[in-house]
Amino acid sequence: MPETRGLQLLSTLEENGTLTVEIVEQTLPEPTGHEVLIRVEAAPINPSDLGLLFGPADVENATYTPRKIVAKMPEGGTRAMKARWGMAMPVGNEGAGTVIAAGDAPEAQALLGKVVTCIPGGMYAQYRIADARGCMVLNDGTSAEDGASAFVNPLTALSFVECMKREGHTGLVHTAAASNLGQMLVRICQEDNVPLVNIVRSPAQVAILKEIGAEHVVDSSAPTFHDDLASALSATGATMAFDATGGGKLVTQILSAMEKVANANSEYSRYGSNSPKQAYIYGLLDLSPTVLQLNFGFSFGINGFLLMPFLQKIGEHNVERLRQRVRDGLTTTFASKYKAKVSLDEVLTREAVLDYNARRTGEKYLILPN
Amino acid sequence: MPETRGLQLLSTLEENGTLTVEIVEQTLPEPTGHEVLIRVEAAPINPSDLGLLFGPADVENATYTPRKIVAKMPEGGTRAMKARWGMAMPVGNEGAGTVIAAGDAPEAQALLGKVVTCIPGGMYAQYRIADARGCMVLNDGTSAEDGASAFVNPLTALSFVECMKREGHTGLVHTAAASNLGQMLVRICQEDNVPLVNIVRSPAQVAILKEIGAEHVVDSSAPTFHDDLASALSATGATMAFDATGGGKLVTQILSAMEKVANANSEYSRYGSNSPKQAYIYGLLDLSPTVLQLNFGFSFGINGFLLMPFLQKIGEHNVERLRQRVRDGLTTTFASKYKAKVSLDEVLTREAVLDYNARRTGEKYLILPN
Repeated sequence: MPETRGLQLLSTLEENGTLTVEIVEQTLPEPTGHEVLIRVEAAPINPSDLGLLFGPADVENATYTPRKIVAKMPEGGTRAMKARWGMAMPVGNEGAGTVIAAGDAPEAQALLGKVVTCIPGGMYAQYRIADARGCMVLNDGTSAEDGASAFVNPLTALSFVECMKREGHTGLVHTAAASNLGQMLVRICQEDNVPLVNIVRSPAQVAILKEIGAEHVVDSSAPTFHDDLASALSATGATMAFDATGGGKLVTQILSAMEKVANANSEYSRYGSNSPKQAYIYGLLDLSPTVLQLNFGFSFGINGFLLMPFLQKIGEHNVERLRQRVRDGLTTTFASKYKAKVSLDEVLTREAVLDYNARRTGEKYLILPN
Repeated sequence: MPETRGLQLLSTLEENGTLTVEIVEQTLPEPTGHEVLIRVEAAPINPSDLGLLFGPADVENATYTPRKIVAKMPEGGTRAMKARWGMAMPVGNEGAGTVIAAGDAPEAQALLGKVVTCIPGGMYAQYRIADARGCMVLNDGTSAEDGASAFVNPLTALSFVECMKREGHTGLVHTAAASNLGQMLVRICQEDNVPLVNIVRSPAQVAILKEIGAEHVVDSSAPTFHDDLASALSATGATMAFDATGGGKLVTQILSAMEKVANANSEYSRYGSNSPKQAYIYGLLDLSPTVLQLNFGFSFGINGFLLMPFLQKIGEHNVERLRQRVRDGLTTTFASKYKAKVSLDEVLTREAVLDYNARRTGEKYLILPN
């Protein structure tokens, strides 16, 4: 098999703050060793992709021409991303497609003709080379569209429960809980009998989760939010939260409510309760500063959470167990919904960018590059 | 031995926000079982005592009469401390004195006549009953004044190094580093060859630490603070910080500087570096909100740190190793300095309260109750 040519999306930030996102043609070499060449058939736009794609750039006032956007990055963002100045970054963490060529290694050869999903990055492209050992073969009959989001969201949601068990907690709190990821987590927790407090930001999102059977759904826009949250924490005993928002006061509100529940029936201690309270921040939907009012004692942890280091920590055996569960539940427990399916060209229209870059819960885009 | 009578200090917060701190007489029963009766000879006022003693109450405009202060607690503070409404709280975590009576248990009898130090709470009193098994006998020739601060600061400073080693870090950052605790940490790190970055708030504090041989001292009031901090982190490889201030932006500044160092020679990643960055908050010298700008990737942890749970975690064998080191170094490595030594009555004068409640680094008070 000779060279393969196809389109790919690149994001380049210059030192002067100019961000260029464009679709260009690339030439891919023949795969060797453990490599496979994938014809990418579907790749989702996750919030985690948007940081690399646009970051805090001003897409509202950018210049849009076919296959090209030129936008201005604020000075702070430009400075913070010094390490990528001048580099054309491929975008798109995950996606699915068909293996059309493979290196000599048996692991690579075994994938020829199969529909696989993987997270090599750079999946906003018509073709992509990936390591066969990082690919997950979809079950027969599962389409690339069904499998496009099989990595990040399903494994992240499963990791929340896994992390909870490893660290000795018995219930979870989740924010931005009406998201695709949040809905998966609701279903996982139902299957595993894990008490879950879902925090959402509107009555409409409450309805979404109630419809799929979520028991504890708390609306942060309600005037009764603090009390509602404390009641739900009390009912579930949840002491570990996974927060997708990052900024603002939500983490403090959650930890304070946990502390309130812990103190409800215990003696006063100037250091707060001894009840462990853990918040993992795994997303930054809210880019404003995180404001902590440290009124929840000293038995707390606030940590960043990243999927890949977590999976490395639990080991290949456990990861395979999680993967198998995803594979078997791709059209049920782990089904994703998309607001729109777009071609590579359509990804860079102003209308689409302003829509998906708003990161509204439950309005995810899927790119179909071929 | 019959009942013992003596003075003790109590702090009482009423639901209406009235805080009363007063010296009253108490009657102590004969010690039984493992209990010992201690004539308290010296007890320090640590920042951790001030939270219970006054908290955020308005001591500036309080009413001062002999042996009694009546102050107004702000509404937020009153609400946060609901669990102590109406309760007369004894104050004073730690102190030292002579055991003058003991229960039947051999562990208690063995302490008769000895000078011991302990942390039963309520040590701002002439007499105090404590559990013999929690007492540390001072070496012969060590005075109660020398041993008054033998628990909290020495074990806390040793715990920082212990924690660092357990969690795989190889260097430390410490804030409010010119404090008694900070100076101990400098000496411990010198003895143990642990690289230490000391963050202080004035040139005068830089001088204090330089004089005892601290190598890396960074002044947060200097215009070059950010660069100075990054240089010191780079030179020491420190990736774990212990922060006494809690509020404000210092934790963010430290974690950001660690991230800057970690990224200096690594490839760009939208998720930040994989280098672990850990901040433990062990004090709240700054009661303003903690403002985090999450620009240091996702490999971070911000946790509360409390001495007693940490000691429980490392186990009795390790605690005894630390205690022995403290016992042997009470007048050298673990020596404390006091700005003033006061009687129980003097503790409640306006002049003294405004002075020690300002929590100025290196201006600690010692109470001599008898």
